[in-house]
Amino acid sequence: MNKLDRVDYPIKELPSGDKVSLSLFRIDSGQEGPHVHIQASVHGAELQGNAVIFHLMEYFINHPFKGTLTFIPLANPAATNSKIGAYTYGRFNPITGHNWNRCYEDVMARPEEQIGGSLKSFVASNSDRPWEKIKRDYKNFLFQSLKNLESYLSKKGENENKKLFLFLQKVAAPADIVLDLHTGPASTRYIYSALYQKKSVVNFHFPFVLNIPNEFAQAMDEATFTPWVQLQREFKALGKEIPLDFESYTLELGSEELVNLDKGHEDAQHILHYLKGQGMIEASEQFTFERPVQRHLLLKDYRTIYAPMGGLVHFHKAAGELVKKGEKLATFLNFKRISDESTFSRALEPLVAQEDCYIINHCASASVSKGMELFQVAENCQEIK
Amino acid sequence: MNKLDRVDYPIKELPSGDKVSLSLFRIDSGQEGPHVHIQASVHGAELQGNAVIFHLMEYFINHPFKGTLTFIPLANPAATNSKIGAYTYGRFNPITGHNWNRCYEDVMARPEEQIGGSLKSFVASNSDRPWEKIKRDYKNFLFQSLKNLESYLSKKGENENKKLFLFLQKVAAPADIVLDLHTGPASTRYIYSALYQKKSVVNFHFPFVLNIPNEFAQAMDEATFTPWVQLQREFKALGKEIPLDFESYTLELGSEELVNLDKGHEDAQHILHYLKGQGMIEASEQFTFERPVQRHLLLKDYRTIYAPMGGLVHFHKAAGELVKKGEKLATFLNFKRISDESTFSRALEPLVAQEDCYIINHCASASVSKGMELFQVAENCQEIK
Amino acid sequence: MNKLDRVDYPIKELPSGDKVSLSLFRIDSGQEGPHVHIQASVHGAELQGNAVIFHLMEYFINHPFKGTLTFIPLANPAATNSKIGAYTYGRFNPITGHNWNRCYEDVMARPEEQIGGSLKSFVASNSDRPWEKIKRDYKNFLFQSLKNLESYLSKKGENENKKLFLFLQKVAAPADIVLDLHTGPASTRYIYSALYQKKSVVNFHFPFVLNIPNEFAQAMDEATFTPWVQLQREFKALGKEIPLDFESYTLELGSEELVNLDKGHEDAQHILHYLKGQGMIEASEQFTFERPVQRHLLLKDYRTIYAPMGGLVHFHKAAGELVKKGEKLATFLNFKRISDESTFSRALEPLVAQEDCYIINHCASASVSKGMELFQVAENCQEIK
Amino acid sequence: MNKLDRVDYPIKELPSGDKVSLSLFRIDSGQEGPHVHIQASVHGAELQGNAVIFHLMEYFINHPFKGTLTFIPLANPAATNSKIGAYTYGRFNPITGHNWNRCYEDVMARPEEQIGGSLKSFVASNSDRPWEKIKRDYKNFLFQSLKNLESYLSKKGENENKKLFLFLQKVAAPADIVLDLHTGPASTRYIYSALYQKKSVVNFHFPFVLNIPNEFAQAMDEATFTPWVQLQREFKALGKEIPLDFESYTLELGSEELVNLDKGHEDAQHILHYLKGQGMIEASEQFTFERPVQRHLLLKDYRTIYAPMGGLVHFHKAAGELVKKGEKLATFLNFKRISDESTFSRALEPLVAQEDCYIINHCASASVSKGMELFQVAENCQEIK
Repeated sequence: MNKLDRVDYPIKELPSGDKVSLSLFRIDSGQEGPHVHIQASVHGAELQGNAVIFHLMEYFINHPFKGTLTFIPLANPAATNSKIGAYTYGRFNPITGHNWNRCYEDVMARPEEQIGGSLKSFVASNSDRPWEKIKRDYKNFLFQSLKNLESYLSKKGENENKKLFLFLQKVAAPADIVLDLHTGPASTRYIYSALYQKKSVVNFHFPFVLNIPNEFAQAMDEATFTPWVQLQREFKALGKEIPLDFESYTLELGSEELVNLDKGHEDAQHILHYLKGQGMIEASEQFTFERPVQRHLLLKDYRTIYAPMGGLVHFHKAAGELVKKGEKLATFLNFKRISDESTFSRALEPLVAQEDCYIINHCASASVSKGMELFQVAENCQEIK
Repeated sequence: MNKLDRVDYPIKELPSGDKVSLSLFRIDSGQEGPHVHIQASVHGAELQGNAVIFHLMEYFINHPFKGTLTFIPLANPAATNSKIGAYTYGRFNPITGHNWNRCYEDVMARPEEQIGGSLKSFVASNSDRPWEKIKRDYKNFLFQSLKNLESYLSKKGENENKKLFLFLQKVAAPADIVLDLHTGPASTRYIYSALYQKKSVVNFHFPFVLNIPNEFAQAMDEATFTPWVQLQREFKALGKEIPLDFESYTLELGSEELVNLDKGHEDAQHILHYLKGQGMIEASEQFTFERPVQRHLLLKDYRTIYAPMGGLVHFHKAAGELVKKGEKLATFLNFKRISDESTFSRALEPLVAQEDCYIINHCASASVSKGMELFQVAENCQEIK
Repeated sequence: MNKLDRVDYPIKELPSGDKVSLSLFRIDSGQEGPHVHIQASVHGAELQGNAVIFHLMEYFINHPFKGTLTFIPLANPAATNSKIGAYTYGRFNPITGHNWNRCYEDVMARPEEQIGGSLKSFVASNSDRPWEKIKRDYKNFLFQSLKNLESYLSKKGENENKKLFLFLQKVAAPADIVLDLHTGPASTRYIYSALYQKKSVVNFHFPFVLNIPNEFAQAMDEATFTPWVQLQREFKALGKEIPLDFESYTLELGSEELVNLDKGHEDAQHILHYLKGQGMIEASEQFTFERPVQRHLLLKDYRTIYAPMGGLVHFHKAAGELVKKGEKLATFLNFKRISDESTFSRALEPLVAQEDCYIINHCASASVSKGMELFQVAENCQEIK
Repeated sequence: MNKLDRVDYPIKELPSGDKVSLSLFRIDSGQEGPHVHIQASVHGAELQGNAVIFHLMEYFINHPFKGTLTFIPLANPAATNSKIGAYTYGRFNPITGHNWNRCYEDVMARPEEQIGGSLKSFVASNSDRPWEKIKRDYKNFLFQSLKNLESYLSKKGENENKKLFLFLQKVAAPADIVLDLHTGPASTRYIYSALYQKKSVVNFHFPFVLNIPNEFAQAMDEATFTPWVQLQREFKALGKEIPLDFESYTLELGSEELVNLDKGHEDAQHILHYLKGQGMIEASEQFTFERPVQRHLLLKDYRTIYAPMGGLVHFHKAAGELVKKGEKLATFLNFKRISDESTFSRALEPLVAQEDCYIINHCASASVSKGMELFQVAENCQEIK
């Protein structure tokens, strides 16, 4: 049995003076190996990742492995706690409107006086050293830069979004692998992966892979891989090739507001299969499930379809299903379109697919105003062989 | 083809000066027969009734029948429109907190100066007349009383809740049958029925019948049957027996935030079967579906189970399913209960049924604070033979 | 310097597993005297009472007095914490819609099997004893009844509203005086007082006294004085006169969302003046302020004026001011009423007082839909000489 | 009397099928002169601009002037209508979290296939023409580009934010002057002005002028002046000097949730004084008020102070007031810091100014969690002589 530690960090002081805390769990194999950071529920209503973390923790407590893991379930407790009616108001800060997954920092882009150093000078002073040492020191430099930035930003009072997100980035700084567990609204399972990870992402055996550019755009996966992409680029400019030896993914585990422990066990199996591919788990360990048909697509082919009218919506297809061009995606019901028996049939109006596509998400409610996000669909998907 | 009329009533003037309107639809067979009033979505997130109204309207436009129908889909448009995130904040008035289905009036209990008459004097002056005439005049008296109450209450400015609810009661005053279409949060199909309707309710072929007392408790079904119960009681006090010739039901059509046109067709079939039993539809007309096993219970056996702790919830059973005493209803996941590997298993805590019961509703979200409504269950159900 | 104790009670376990706590403070003079219970912010946005509690605590730590005090600032921490935008969503439970000050229990009306006793038998077995002893034992009986009710209700899971309110009632059971500190939306200072307290309420020197019936209606003041009213009534039925030796008030301390420490000092002075009248403070102690003109009115003359139209509102008078019949209370601005230059002046529409009245509260926002509460006004006020 | 026209545009179809509309008012003097576009309440709770528009419309209906005006009061009706409790949830879209004043388009930065042209080719084909003609044609080009962009974006369904904001930009395209009327939370009067308008902004006689860069940052003022800044830049690159003959301002008119018609009259006088400076109103017309002391500052000196702890806040100074370095800005009240009588005074904790500053805004509520925006302050203000 491996040891499990828990450390709590009070992350928010409420108006009442009470505090909500992050619990950071750590399992150390005692053996050399990758450092993996896994967090869930940065968006407060996206809960399934916690069931997955439960099963992963159970596995790693009870099995030999190589390396270290940190887990942060319920990484944004104030967001999960913010409920109106039974539902969770967890996608953005209810006070400021900021999307909780668009608050991270492109830390290396910050000026030297804020982070206490610079990528350029790090690279300059490390150009002759072996990769292993550079890597170790770069992790420290990252960690220290985030710490310095935190202290710089908190001088004039601490913005509540920044505090949380700098904390998460800082905890993830020593990691070789970062998994950020999310869900969609009413959704299938899919995974965001930077293009440079095209090969290893397949090991998650997720039905849909969304290939994103190797660039910063404020989410956790981007915030953690960007410093490594930048490091490689800087060394290259000096004529030195280094590996891109870091991976970061956003996993979308079905629909929000749900926790399913049985599916969480399956999800954990997929992640373990990926980690085996990373050398963390004995090659002999078997995770028995069939690889599903897997498809990937580019971010530009991941499209939002907005509601073309207000009304009530019957969704014809579930998330994960294929809709052929010309088939109905949804039918709107709007009684204001009826004036008498002869116009009765106008109450129904179909919305038809303009291209073949897979439903990735649909709106979690059947009542929409014109212009609300109705679907995200995947067009031009390619099967991964 | 029968004629369909639509009349719009501006029911709310918004701060912007825009108005939202109720659309009242009416289909008249031209033949003597019951007057049926059907409304949906008084709770703004409870949408499925609108799909049912669509199918009922389609049927009655295209088939011969006896009597008249009024339909009010989206009977509380401001509630359906009030969305935060994708979800609808529709169970209570977001400004005042009043539950939208607890605002109706026990109109005959109002003093004479407010309603322009009294039940006592109505009964006194009608004691020798035939039931048919009494019934017709009582409907008018009801309508007039509600109109007077409306004008009394609006003298000092109009409370926004009252305006809507008096309007709905007034429109329903001429009815012989009132159907109020609701849904639960994550729910099976069940129906609230006053004890005196024990026989005819069976015709809806709903799997669960919840027998409520023949008494006023602020909901639409009670507000509409109570004046008839009171009328019968008053006549009885004078030694005259009259029939209780009025029916009113609250139908719970599955889960909120959903519209399913196909299930709406089935739901409409069940309602048509009931209306056939009321002599509205030719006896030869067939509505083909199997009568499911039906169970009924008393209101006292319809129990709410509150969350015994805060945390994330895995629901073991779906709405409609039986849970035996001692079986798991739910398992809570709470990471704050873990301190190290030896206490890891405490993260899961089961909630076990204390009696055999059927799940009627469960909470629509898997994240709950201690004390939130987790389930409504039906205990001591009896099969209806 | 008198001793101050603090005991914390975790009152709510959040979905994240974190807890929010009530802090109960106690100051004991060591001398015989009244037991006073003071709480604030049961409605989450009504904050000023906490500033008052601060100043009262400061006084009682530093001055000799007779009796004991318990203070609960921020008595409903989850309500104060529930913010959307900058504002506090604190008037009702955001999950259930229940008004936070309408959840208390008429404990003596509960059946014997729930509270483990009955008022009738208490009275029967105490009819010959001296009042002092009856009083002491009745406090214990009250406390025990609430404790039993708590345990009865929590058997099937604990409703989150009930838990908090039974706790507050239980803590207040030993009190001789209960002060529940509230505010209005945009408001003057006024005080709710049961009719039987007509004399002593004057000592608070509040400009408006709202005399309410000596009856239970779910608020804290009523929940705490009702058992004493019932006790007196029961003894009277047996022919024994006992004093009504208990007082309970709801103090409305201006507008919500505000904390003003300087005004809080004044408010504290008014309360100290009242407590001096109750024998708690040396008669020689001076609280120097002028008694303002004081007016009282009956609950029936405390009227809500609803918005007669939707639009933007200019309020002509501040809370506390007199409006004469025919004077403007408010002017509505609604651009939808203009069609061209000749109808331009219709954009403004005055709302005129129909009776002489004092403004007690007005709506905290200038944008209203038709039917929203615009004002509470006091009509037929009598000056207290 | 000048003519006033109103045209309504349904801007949002609600789930109920009802629509909310923008009302666009137009007053044409019939004489050559500037085209002025004025809108209010893009943030739904910021209401005072509507009172100002009322007084401006009244003035321009009843006085001779040169040019044309368009007015859009309540420019974002769905935002003003979205209320929870009495307050308006109007700063960001309650469904998506987008700040309503950060959704505008840098239209000239869009690719040619989306807007049907390009700034470069417009400049190339206009280099030899007189400025008057270029200006007229550029307005048309702007309008047409926005129309094309609208139709491009709506092809796959219309995003509800974009629809409104493209509409507002399009309506403003023919303008020479754009005034966007806002308010802060609890605020003084101040005005955002691009650096190039440094001279004319003084004519508004606002106490604080916030000088922003001449660059696009998604707000209305920037979205409307940016195309003119870009035009000048492009011509300059070709060696041709053109004037920057367009002005755009964001006026902050005090606090949100308020409408004051009397102050609205004063605000209108200030705007009329500015418009007189623009040649729209006879030089002989007098607007009688004293020019207040005016101060300006750079955007970098407009600083947000975040709450350094959770708790209740007493604000020592009102918006508009000066706070000297070392003086108290606010005092926090937090009862969790008290453990007994000896630590009682810790309940209060002052927040002290670190530099001399003027309070521009403070939080509209006195209860804050750690990290909430508490103040915006102006440092390094210079008096405008």
